Amino acid sequence: MPSYTPPIRDLQFILHDVLQLSQSGLPGHAELDRDFTEAVLDAAGKLAAEVLAPLNAVGDRQGCRLENGVVRTPDGFREAFEAVKEGGWTAMDCDPEYGGQGMPHTLHAAAGEMFVAANMAFNMYQGLTHGAFSAIHEHGTDDQKALYLPKMVSCDWTGTMNLTEPHCGTDLGLLRTRAEPQDDGSYRITGTKIFISAGDHDMAENVIHLVLAKAPGGGEGTKGISLFIVPKFLVNADGSLGDRNGVGVGNLEEKMGIHGNATCVMNFDGAKGWLLGDLHKGMRAMFTMMNEARLGVGLQGYACAIPAYQAAVEYAKDRLQGRAVTGAKNPAGPADPLIVHPDIRRSLMDQKSFLEGARMLTLWGAQLIDRSRAGDADAESLISLLTPVIKGFLTDKGFETAVLAQQVFGGHGYIEEQGMSQFVRDARITMIYEGANGVQALDLVGRKLAAEGGKPLMALFEMVKSFSREHGENEALAADFIAPLKAASKDLQTAAMFFMERGMKNPDDALAGSYDFMHLFGHAILGFMWARMAVVAQAALDAGEGDAAFLKTKLATARYYMKRQLPMTATHLARISSGAEPVMALEAEAF
Amino acid sequence: MPSYTPPIRDLQFILHDVLQLSQSGLPGHAELDRDFTEAVLDAAGKLAAEVLAPLNAVGDRQGCRLENGVVRTPDGFREAFEAVKEGGWTAMDCDPEYGGQGMPHTLHAAAGEMFVAANMAFNMYQGLTHGAFSAIHEHGTDDQKALYLPKMVSCDWTGTMNLTEPHCGTDLGLLRTRAEPQDDGSYRITGTKIFISAGDHDMAENVIHLVLAKAPGGGEGTKGISLFIVPKFLVNADGSLGDRNGVGVGNLEEKMGIHGNATCVMNFDGAKGWLLGDLHKGMRAMFTMMNEARLGVGLQGYACAIPAYQAAVEYAKDRLQGRAVTGAKNPAGPADPLIVHPDIRRSLMDQKSFLEGARMLTLWGAQLIDRSRAGDADAESLISLLTPVIKGFLTDKGFETAVLAQQVFGGHGYIEEQGMSQFVRDARITMIYEGANGVQALDLVGRKLAAEGGKPLMALFEMVKSFSREHGENEALAADFIAPLKAASKDLQTAAMFFMERGMKNPDDALAGSYDFMHLFGHAILGFMWARMAVVAQAALDAGEGDAAFLKTKLATARYYMKRQLPMTATHLARISSGAEPVMALEAEAF
Repeated sequence: MPSYTPPIRDLQFILHDVLQLSQSGLPGHAELDRDFTEAVLDAAGKLAAEVLAPLNAVGDRQGCRLENGVVRTPDGFREAFEAVKEGGWTAMDCDPEYGGQGMPHTLHAAAGEMFVAANMAFNMYQGLTHGAFSAIHEHGTDDQKALYLPKMVSCDWTGTMNLTEPHCGTDLGLLRTRAEPQDDGSYRITGTKIFISAGDHDMAENVIHLVLAKAPGGGEGTKGISLFIVPKFLVNADGSLGDRNGVGVGNLEEKMGIHGNATCVMNFDGAKGWLLGDLHKGMRAMFTMMNEARLGVGLQGYACAIPAYQAAVEYAKDRLQGRAVTGAKNPAGPADPLIVHPDIRRSLMDQKSFLEGARMLTLWGAQLIDRSRAGDADAESLISLLTPVIKGFLTDKGFETAVLAQQVFGGHGYIEEQGMSQFVRDARITMIYEGANGVQALDLVGRKLAAEGGKPLMALFEMVKSFSREHGENEALAADFIAPLKAASKDLQTAAMFFMERGMKNPDDALAGSYDFMHLFGHAILGFMWARMAVVAQAALDAGEGDAAFLKTKLATARYYMKRQLPMTATHLARISSGAEPVMALEAEAF
Repeated sequence: MPSYTPPIRDLQFILHDVLQLSQSGLPGHAELDRDFTEAVLDAAGKLAAEVLAPLNAVGDRQGCRLENGVVRTPDGFREAFEAVKEGGWTAMDCDPEYGGQGMPHTLHAAAGEMFVAANMAFNMYQGLTHGAFSAIHEHGTDDQKALYLPKMVSCDWTGTMNLTEPHCGTDLGLLRTRAEPQDDGSYRITGTKIFISAGDHDMAENVIHLVLAKAPGGGEGTKGISLFIVPKFLVNADGSLGDRNGVGVGNLEEKMGIHGNATCVMNFDGAKGWLLGDLHKGMRAMFTMMNEARLGVGLQGYACAIPAYQAAVEYAKDRLQGRAVTGAKNPAGPADPLIVHPDIRRSLMDQKSFLEGARMLTLWGAQLIDRSRAGDADAESLISLLTPVIKGFLTDKGFETAVLAQQVFGGHGYIEEQGMSQFVRDARITMIYEGANGVQALDLVGRKLAAEGGKPLMALFEMVKSFSREHGENEALAADFIAPLKAASKDLQTAAMFFMERGMKNPDDALAGSYDFMHLFGHAILGFMWARMAVVAQAALDAGEGDAAFLKTKLATARYYMKRQLPMTATHLARISSGAEPVMALEAEAF
C-alpha cells in the first residue's frame, strides 16, 4: 500500500520564500516565522503520515455501514478522529472567541493539504464541519454562535451541508423541502436530501445539519429558500444534548470512491430547525459555506493526487524494466529502472509540475482569504474570481494526475490491492461535488468575469504585467518564464475580450467556451505561479542562499511547466474562438 | 441501469458509403451488399442489446469467483456464451477450413463493436480466443491446426495469452518460465504468469493457453523465448479430452473494473506443452496475436464508451435543471432539460465526434487488414504504422469520453447503482493492457516511424495530399474540412521531421515527445476520417440521396471535430518541439 511523505520543504518554500508569510503585514502574522510554521507543519505531517494515511485503504475497503439507523465508520477512524481533535487541528484558523486558535487560513490550508493527501475521505468529516462553522459564525445570532460553535470548533459536534434533493442539484430553485414556522420561533423541516457527505457517523456526539428549505411566503425559485440549523440531537440552553430530532439516515450510497466517508440520504420528518441568517435569503448564507467548500475541494483535487505521484515515483525508481535507449543505466542489474525512460519522465514531470503549481495557487488563494478577512476588498474580489478556477481546474487536473500516476504501474496499477485505483476513484468525486466543474465554468464566465465591471480580472492582468515588467530584463528569466507567461496572459485576455464582444449579443458564444476558458485561465494562472516561484528560486541561487539542489529542481520543474503545459492556452483559445455555432448546431434529437 | 442501442445506421454508412465494402474488389466482398450486412448487423445488435448488455452490470457486481480451483463466471454468462456460439458469432471471419464463416474482418469488427459496447468483460472470453486462433492458424503445424482450431472457432474451447510475469510485463526478456524438452517432442512448462485474462472459467470445455517460456539454448533476452500451446485438458489424437494438465489458477485478481472477466494468476507446474512455430522465435508468433489484440483493444477503447455516451444523451434530455440562457426551452415545465446548456452540448459533441471518428478509423483499419490478407503489402505496412495509434489514442480518448459521460450525471454519476462508474472503471484497463499506452508511443516513434525507411508514413501523407487536392476546390468542403486537415497534417509532418533530425543524435529527443506524437497522430488521422465522411455526406446531400437529417448531422459533427478537436495538434507539436531537455532535466533523486 502506498505511504505518504509530507512535503514540508516545499510548503515552507511557498509560505516563506514566495508568500512572505511573516512579513505580509497581516494581523498576527509577524510571529509566524519559519521555525514556528515548521513545527506546526511537522506535527501535522506526522499525524497525516502515521495515523491518517494507513487508514486510507482501510476506509476504501471497509466503507461505512448503516446499522439500526446509525452509521458506523471504518476500523480506526474513531481513534484517528480523537487524535485530530486532541491535536487541536480542527480549531486552527477558527475564531478564538469560540475556542479556535486564530491562526491564518494560509497555515490551515498548508496543514489541510497533508490531511487530505493522507486520507481524503476521513478528512471530509472535519472539513465539512469547518464550513458549517463558518456559515454559523458569519450569519448566526450571538445565541446560536454561543450554543453551537465551541462544540464545532472542537469537532465534538460535526457539521453538514444539506442542499441536494433527488430531482435537483445545481438548480436549487426546484427544491421541495419545506419549513413550517412554529409558535416558539422554530421551524418544522420536512423533506429528503441526498448525497449528504458525513451525514451521520459514530465519531461525534452530535451532527449539526445546515439545511436549505422553503418557508411559506418566499416566492418561487431560489428567492424563497432559507437556511436552517437542524441538529441530530436537540441542544438544551445549557449546551447539553436533549431529544433526538426528527432527522435520520434513509440510506447510504454505494459510490465509486471515498468509501470512508458516509454519503447519506437524509430524511427530515418534521425535524426541529432554527433559521440561520435572514428568512428567504438562505442562498446567501449557504454561499459562505459553498465558497469555502469550493476552495476546499480545489485543494482536495490536487492533494489527493500527491500520494499517487509519490507512489509512482517510488515505483519508477524500483521497477526494473527495459534499458535506457541511450545506454544501460543499471548495467549490473537485469534491466534499468522505469525512471530512465523519457516517457515515464514525461509523466512524472507532468504530475510534479502540476502538483507544485497547484499547491502554490492554493496557498496564494488562502493568503488572499486572509487578506480579505483583514478588510482588503481587492483580495476578496480576486479570490472570488479565482474560486471557480481553483475548484474546476485543480480537480480536473488532479484527477488526470492520479490517472497518470496509476498508469506508471502498468497492469499492477489496475489491481485494487496496489492502492492506485483508490486514488483515481477518490479523485473523481472532486470534479463533481460542490458544483460540477461545468457549473464552475458557468460561474466563471457567467458571473465572475463581469463582476464589478470586470475589475478583478483587469487587476489580475495588471499584476501579471507589472510582474513581467519587473523581471523581463532578467536574462536568466526572460525567455524561459516571462515570455511564455506573457503569451498565455495574452491568450487569456483575447478569450475574455471575445466573450465580452460576443457574449452580449449571443450568450451561448460565451457559454460554449466556458469550460475551455476555465482551463485556459487555469493554465495561465499556474504559469504565473511558476514564474513567481522561478523568480524567487533564481534570486536565492544568485544570492547563494538556500538549498541549491532544491532550488535548481524548482527552476527545472518551472521550465517544464512553461514549455510543456502552457502551450495548451493556444488550443483552448482556438476552441473558444470558434464560438457557439459548432457546439449548438444539432437539434437535441440528433444526438 | 444504462441500456444499449446498436448504431446500425452509422455502421452501414461507414461500411458502404465511405468504405464501399461490396465494391472494394476484395475477394468475397462483392456479395456483401447493404441488405446482407444490415441483416448481419441487426442480428448482432439484437444479441448485444438484449442478451449481453443486461449482463454488464451483473458481471460488474458479482465478478468472478474461484471455487476449488475453478473459476465461476457471473450469473447468466454461461447462457449468453451459448447464445453467442449458437449464433456463429465466434466464427465470423475465421478460416472456413476449420469451421469459420470466412467473412471479412471489417464486418467482424463492426459486429464486434456492438458486442464490446454491450459487455466488454464478457466479450473478452471470445476476443482472446480469436487471437489465439490466429496465432495457431498462422504458426501452427497442420496437425496442431486440425487438433485445436475447429473447437476454438466454435469457442467450445477458449484461448488465452500468457506473457506477463510478476517481475516483467513490457520487458519480456526478463521472463523466467522454463520449457524443458521431453523425449516425445513435447515440453514441460514451469513458471507463474499473472494478469491472464479469461485464464479459466466455466463456459468452455477446455482452455488453450499460449505461453511464452524459455527453452534451453536460446540465449539471453527475448531471443531465447519460444511460444507453447498448453491446454488445460490434454487433447487426445481424436480430439477428445484427456487428463488434466499441470496448469491451474493460483488466484483471481481484484481489479478496478472488468469484474466479469477472470484475471488469473496461472501456475504452470511441469505442464505439458507443444512448441508453436519456431524454437526461440516465440516473440514473432506472439506478435501475430499481440497485433490483433492491440487493434482489438483500440476497438474496446472507444466501444466501451458508446453506452456511456448514449446514457449521457438520455439523461441530458430527461433531467430538468436550470433554464437556457437564451430563454426557456421548456416553459411549461419546472426547468429546461440539461441538453439546452452549451457546456452540456460541448461535452456531448466531444463524445459524439470522438466516437464516430474512432469507429471510422477502426473500420478503415479493419479494411486495411482485409486488404493485407488479400496480399496488399502497402495496406499491411499502413496498418502496422496505425496499430499503436489505434490502440493508444482510441483508448486514452475512450476513457476521457467515459469520464465526460459520467460527468453529465453530476453526483448521480458517482453512485455505482447508476452504472456510469462501471464504464469509467472498465474503460481504464484499455489504456493499460496489451502494452501500456506509453509502450505504444514508443513502438510508434521507435519502430513504426522508421520502418521501411519511413515509407508507410510518406504514403499516408500522400494519401491525405491527394484527398485534399481532389476536394480542395469544393467550396462546401474547402474551408471547413480541407484547410484544417492540411494544417493538422503539416503539424504531423513537422513533428516527424523533428524526430528524424534530432532523434539520430539524441534518441531521447524523439522519445520525450513520443506520447504527444501518438496523440498528434491520432487527432490528425481522426481529422482525416472526418473529412472523408464529410465528403461522402456532402456528395449524398448534393445528389439528394440518403437520409438528409442523418447526413446533415454527420456534417455538423465533422465540423465540430475540425474546429474544436483538431487544434490540439498545435499544442502537441509545441510540446514535441521542446525536445528532451525539459523532460530529462532532473536527476532521479530530485523527484
